[in-house]
Amino acid sequence: MNTRTTEEIMHAMGVQARRASARMAIASAKEKALALRFLADLLRQQAPALQVENAKDLERARANGLTEPMVDRLKLTDTILETAAQGCEQLAAMPDIIGDVIGLRQQPSGIRVGQMRVPLGVFGMIYESRPNVTIEAASLAIKSGNACILRGGSEAIDSNKALAALVRQALVHAQLPEDGVQLVPTTDRAAVGALITMPEYVDVIIPRGGRGLIERISAEAKVPVIKHLDGICHTYVDDPSNIEQAVVIADNAKTHKYSPCNATETLLVARGVAEQFLPKIAAIYAAKGVEMRVTDEARAWVSQAPQAHVVSATEADWSTEYLAPIISIKIVAGLDEAIAHINQYGSHHTDAIVTNNHQHAQRFLREVDSASVMVNASTRFADGFEFGLGAEIGISTDKFHARGPVGVEGLTSLKFIVLGEGEIRQ
Amino acid sequence: MNTRTTEEIMHAMGVQARRASARMAIASAKEKALALRFLADLLRQQAPALQVENAKDLERARANGLTEPMVDRLKLTDTILETAAQGCEQLAAMPDIIGDVIGLRQQPSGIRVGQMRVPLGVFGMIYESRPNVTIEAASLAIKSGNACILRGGSEAIDSNKALAALVRQALVHAQLPEDGVQLVPTTDRAAVGALITMPEYVDVIIPRGGRGLIERISAEAKVPVIKHLDGICHTYVDDPSNIEQAVVIADNAKTHKYSPCNATETLLVARGVAEQFLPKIAAIYAAKGVEMRVTDEARAWVSQAPQAHVVSATEADWSTEYLAPIISIKIVAGLDEAIAHINQYGSHHTDAIVTNNHQHAQRFLREVDSASVMVNASTRFADGFEFGLGAEIGISTDKFHARGPVGVEGLTSLKFIVLGEGEIRQ
Repeated sequence: MNTRTTEEIMHAMGVQARRASARMAIASAKEKALALRFLADLLRQQAPALQVENAKDLERARANGLTEPMVDRLKLTDTILETAAQGCEQLAAMPDIIGDVIGLRQQPSGIRVGQMRVPLGVFGMIYESRPNVTIEAASLAIKSGNACILRGGSEAIDSNKALAALVRQALVHAQLPEDGVQLVPTTDRAAVGALITMPEYVDVIIPRGGRGLIERISAEAKVPVIKHLDGICHTYVDDPSNIEQAVVIADNAKTHKYSPCNATETLLVARGVAEQFLPKIAAIYAAKGVEMRVTDEARAWVSQAPQAHVVSATEADWSTEYLAPIISIKIVAGLDEAIAHINQYGSHHTDAIVTNNHQHAQRFLREVDSASVMVNASTRFADGFEFGLGAEIGISTDKFHARGPVGVEGLTSLKFIVLGEGEIRQ
Repeated sequence: MNTRTTEEIMHAMGVQARRASARMAIASAKEKALALRFLADLLRQQAPALQVENAKDLERARANGLTEPMVDRLKLTDTILETAAQGCEQLAAMPDIIGDVIGLRQQPSGIRVGQMRVPLGVFGMIYESRPNVTIEAASLAIKSGNACILRGGSEAIDSNKALAALVRQALVHAQLPEDGVQLVPTTDRAAVGALITMPEYVDVIIPRGGRGLIERISAEAKVPVIKHLDGICHTYVDDPSNIEQAVVIADNAKTHKYSPCNATETLLVARGVAEQFLPKIAAIYAAKGVEMRVTDEARAWVSQAPQAHVVSATEADWSTEYLAPIISIKIVAGLDEAIAHINQYGSHHTDAIVTNNHQHAQRFLREVDSASVMVNASTRFADGFEFGLGAEIGISTDKFHARGPVGVEGLTSLKFIVLGEGEIRQ
């Protein structure tokens, strides 16, 4: 019988994580790849057993009255498990960046100074819903040489426990400490409060979930938080630009999926191309049922489309993340006004320009103060996999430490190394 | 007459800093170098005028009963002003890293993804005593393309105002916004409270001062803090090592200066070389009046030195930052025990090994979890200038964002850039 308090449980997990992190940090590339590949095998072999545990979560979710789309998000289907297994194998195949030394250079004193990439130590991850995040987080912890403490949603607790058990089996198989990855076993909310206030055991917290969760954790945490707030993303169609390309990009950026944070919420159009561009994109949005919230000047160009749903934009629209089939549209004088609008109203997440002008492209890249800035591409590309990071533990809308999609590198830091031959300070 | 509250003053400074930061961020290398070189000229030309203002601080300090060594720290001597001017010129001559693009690589979708180095935006700096820090911070802000708000100690307010006025003159000369560098004009303590709780205007806070100041700021800040806590640094003399070299390094690491954070506080000695090494270093420490706090095993080897001041070490000694002519000494079995001791008792600041063994050197570099890890060199080298950073705004004992000496790069971040040719997400 377990009579420990939640605080005692979390404290003990912290001690174990800190201890395991020393070994994880010096694990060889070979050991880490072995653990990841073995985990991939386990996810495939144990799929039926995992689905038995998963069924408990699904049953409880239905009993609790969750809607079927919400129940769907909890499902560990064969496809989801196969994708998770492939993710582990992809990470195993990537170069290991831990121990990389950069910039080793001799100084006037004779010492050679460089920087070595090292893990942060221990990260805590707090997430809701989808249990496959357990595998994403655990595999990134292994690859980056960090220990981690995972706190999944209570609605997926049985699935998460089963997945975490496989992860720990894989760690042991590779002779790594099983406490390299720990799952919080209790659904008590006090566990989160403890996890985010143990700077002696946890080096960084990564929350994934709704804005409310992230703001609460940021406000209460005593350790750094890699946080993702709003995604108010813009696509700016410049003058001159390839209008056909602009239409394809503006369509994809808004309608490929409505719920992701990197979907475009505001379309800015240079006055010089509005007449050409707006009727074309408006026809597509209208056909797809996307509501257009527009300035007076834009109204004439978008209203002609059959079945167009056009509304006057208010000031609030420019700083609203719709995550829905709605887009705000504004005509601007040109590049300067576009950059000013984005830096004022955007959320510094992801913004794109469609242009043929080299100087405009360069200025947009330099002057737009966002985590991801794009030329002639859809904002939907802002993603760890698409960026070649191999995996993504989250997206940072902060400027400190990591900006944009966070993969293995975002879970590391650089320490200075000095190679001398007996030098002393004069 | 100014009837604004301190909060209103700070709020207005925040608005101005944020506005100026957009221009500072896109300042050309040429503009920044012009501002820095003009500032150097001003510091030399205006030395007499600066010293008139400085005299007010000195007079007030003496009237307030400050000791002469403390008054000395406030002095803007010709030498200090010349050093500050040279620092500005050195920064001007360094390569400009803002806008650097790294790792631009094509992804399977066709987009090319890289990262661009950009300023953090606005930093706030809180410091005590020495007014030349005003120039160090301002010049680093200019070089790194950040705006900054400086809050110096009340004892140096007249000097700081005069120095800040020159900085702003230099910014204007280079056609950069004078609000790129602002000095808090009031000595009201509420100004600090406001500065560290304006995340909308300030991106990072850098406190420089005593541990009390730093802990208070860290606890109350609503923005990230680059902080420097203890410097419990170790020198480990390995078996085998060059004993003469070990003596020179252990001497320098402790006695070169006693007050800096990178002075060695604990000497670890491999049992195999204790008999050779300890009597030699003990003779030097004894001659220099350094108290030795030793384990029983070490006592025999250090007590023979004439006038040796030897004390038994207690458990507390291993985690004490003396900043004084005191050193703790322990004999260890070898590398494993040395690394374990350092990671347990150290402050993750700076630690060195003296060794002839390649494998030991490599393991020490990888396994010691400190911001600066050294082989065959004095811990006193942990410094922005010695590391080739050009300047140092502080030293971070954190793992997040920046570790060790923080120069221009520590005041920057990497954003993702994407170059496409019309790609959309499939």
